[in-house]
Amino acid sequence: MLNFTYQNPVKLIFGKGTIAQVKDLIPKQTKILMTYGGGSIKKNGVYEQVKAALQGHNVVEFGGIEPNPEYETLLKAVELCKKEKVEFLLAVGGGSVIDGTKFIAAAVHFAGNKWDILDKFAPIQRAIPLGCILTLPATGSEMNGGSVVSRRELEEKRFFISPLVFPQFSILDPETTFSLPNRQTSNGIVDAFVHVTEQYLTYDVNTPLQDRQAEAILMTLIEEGPKVLAHPKDYGARANVMWCATQALNELIGCGVAQDWATHMIGHELTAFYGLDHGQTLAIVLPALLTHQIQPKLKKLVQYGRRIWNCNQGNELEIAKAAIQKTEAFFQSIQVPTKLQDYKIGNEKFEAIAQRIVNRGMKLGEHQAIGQKEIVEILQLCLK
Amino acid sequence: MLNFTYQNPVKLIFGKGTIAQVKDLIPKQTKILMTYGGGSIKKNGVYEQVKAALQGHNVVEFGGIEPNPEYETLLKAVELCKKEKVEFLLAVGGGSVIDGTKFIAAAVHFAGNKWDILDKFAPIQRAIPLGCILTLPATGSEMNGGSVVSRRELEEKRFFISPLVFPQFSILDPETTFSLPNRQTSNGIVDAFVHVTEQYLTYDVNTPLQDRQAEAILMTLIEEGPKVLAHPKDYGARANVMWCATQALNELIGCGVAQDWATHMIGHELTAFYGLDHGQTLAIVLPALLTHQIQPKLKKLVQYGRRIWNCNQGNELEIAKAAIQKTEAFFQSIQVPTKLQDYKIGNEKFEAIAQRIVNRGMKLGEHQAIGQKEIVEILQLCLK
Repeated sequence: MLNFTYQNPVKLIFGKGTIAQVKDLIPKQTKILMTYGGGSIKKNGVYEQVKAALQGHNVVEFGGIEPNPEYETLLKAVELCKKEKVEFLLAVGGGSVIDGTKFIAAAVHFAGNKWDILDKFAPIQRAIPLGCILTLPATGSEMNGGSVVSRRELEEKRFFISPLVFPQFSILDPETTFSLPNRQTSNGIVDAFVHVTEQYLTYDVNTPLQDRQAEAILMTLIEEGPKVLAHPKDYGARANVMWCATQALNELIGCGVAQDWATHMIGHELTAFYGLDHGQTLAIVLPALLTHQIQPKLKKLVQYGRRIWNCNQGNELEIAKAAIQKTEAFFQSIQVPTKLQDYKIGNEKFEAIAQRIVNRGMKLGEHQAIGQKEIVEILQLCLK
Repeated sequence: MLNFTYQNPVKLIFGKGTIAQVKDLIPKQTKILMTYGGGSIKKNGVYEQVKAALQGHNVVEFGGIEPNPEYETLLKAVELCKKEKVEFLLAVGGGSVIDGTKFIAAAVHFAGNKWDILDKFAPIQRAIPLGCILTLPATGSEMNGGSVVSRRELEEKRFFISPLVFPQFSILDPETTFSLPNRQTSNGIVDAFVHVTEQYLTYDVNTPLQDRQAEAILMTLIEEGPKVLAHPKDYGARANVMWCATQALNELIGCGVAQDWATHMIGHELTAFYGLDHGQTLAIVLPALLTHQIQPKLKKLVQYGRRIWNCNQGNELEIAKAAIQKTEAFFQSIQVPTKLQDYKIGNEKFEAIAQRIVNRGMKLGEHQAIGQKEIVEILQLCLK
């Protein structure tokens, strides 16, 4: 096991009918900015529940945060925070709303060019406290200190991490997810799944507990994912998927293990260049990356194949290949296409994508062995 | 899944050579009381490491906290805290030292009879902040807000829980456990194992992720436990056991599930009356409790038997019985006897033990169905 430090102070409030508790989690005299997305919370009743709970609180609103939250939009919210002297941010929505709200929280008091937070990992000294009401299980943002923001003007999708943007609380009511479109549900399942594989399918450093904790999430997603798609109002299945997504990226399964994150880094570029959904990019890149990295990842891929997919036929390489095929088939089975050609995307920008990642001084993967050439090779495997 | 709230702010610092980090975790001007037990830390080098790290800090010491920390001893530490105006408590040791230190932290500012904290769950309004350097993986106290204290004068062993006594940090260096006597190592493995079963072997409320997270800990303890006994300086195995013990009682696997805790409640009385080690009492009570409660726990016992012990022969009842036998055999295999007769204890005090539990107004178990009669029946099953 590698040495590690772990701390996650987020207060998780999970279950049916829990949104009303928000009124006791933010002091009454606090000026709140409630942030949300494109308006789905006004259709599914969540907006009304939150407003009812916060009657008597001083709330201003900022809606319209996009999927892959847009830097320019968030800057408008930053200005609103200053104008309204906002003291607390309440994000109501999915990972994009929460990530965007974390950026707002960090940017309000950030002197200088706010793009540096994302472009140069400029250190955050102070952030407005925030809380979340989660409506889409996927990113795990409700229980971590990470945020991903896009800037379409530059075709950029970038991230920052700071302990100052851990939510103070996150309320997770699985009933809020009953009305999600299948596409968002499926993308969320893929996102959670790949968060786990990024921390699990690397190389062995003798972490049997973390491995099994990771496998626990994968097995549960494989089991419960199809249930929520078939029965969108199955409370139990929705709750299980929601808890899986939170656990997939609250840093716990990453304690003491080698981590990859190449699939996310390459996937971010596919969103930045082509506007694909985050989950779609992961479903495309992961099988290709695992195929390309089958040798360095062999031991873990074999364990994964045997324990998760019951692959026992043939030698280790055959088991690993079968495991990758099963993974891709799972994504397809929940209606997330796994090839660039499914989105009518060709190889025109592969070199530009690889060049851009390399220009940032990053080599990807748990061995930092994925450079420009390897990124292009992986993208070739994504084609069809 | 049941509704739940989860928050655990403890900062965990895990790995080889991490004790030196303590110097940066407590501000220099803070008056520290360093607490410890019977002196093993002076033999294994931990005491020197801590003192070296805290050079330049203002440290007073309080040693001699017993296994099953004694109320009267802790009151002496409370007096010392007042006299020395202690601002931070640093517990260096195992669960008994940490639990005792949590009681000290809560008692210093507690007005009135301090026994009420344990006897009446009198609410804690304020506590001295504390940190831990763990040297014995077992109780999970390093990452929770619970504490168990004994009062030998009254033959009592009682507990309290408060979010105010979560450690601010806990440092876990597996090398500190190399020199543990086998008896303490084994007791620790049993303790962690039974912490898991208390939260897992109850009734099904559709929690597949939590079930697998619990099974992850059990499987790892079964696999790694014998390794540390055979090779006490196997760093990897020691690290895995240590991380299992923390995860077994940091509240995570208890989220949203039905919980039991009858084994602990009955076990505490066996320590209070007979002075048995905590781990010994659990190894005795758990198989008896599971046998007595085989019908209400059947579904989970069958799952446990199949997944953990590969029991697949026969009908459900036979699988459950086999799983209980395997559990008992595992405890015996790591040299923890599982019957009262192994300690030359008879049935003389069974009624008194049951009466005392009932007098506290408690019915035990996940269905609150274990009363006086059932406790005596379970104790009878513990005899031989």
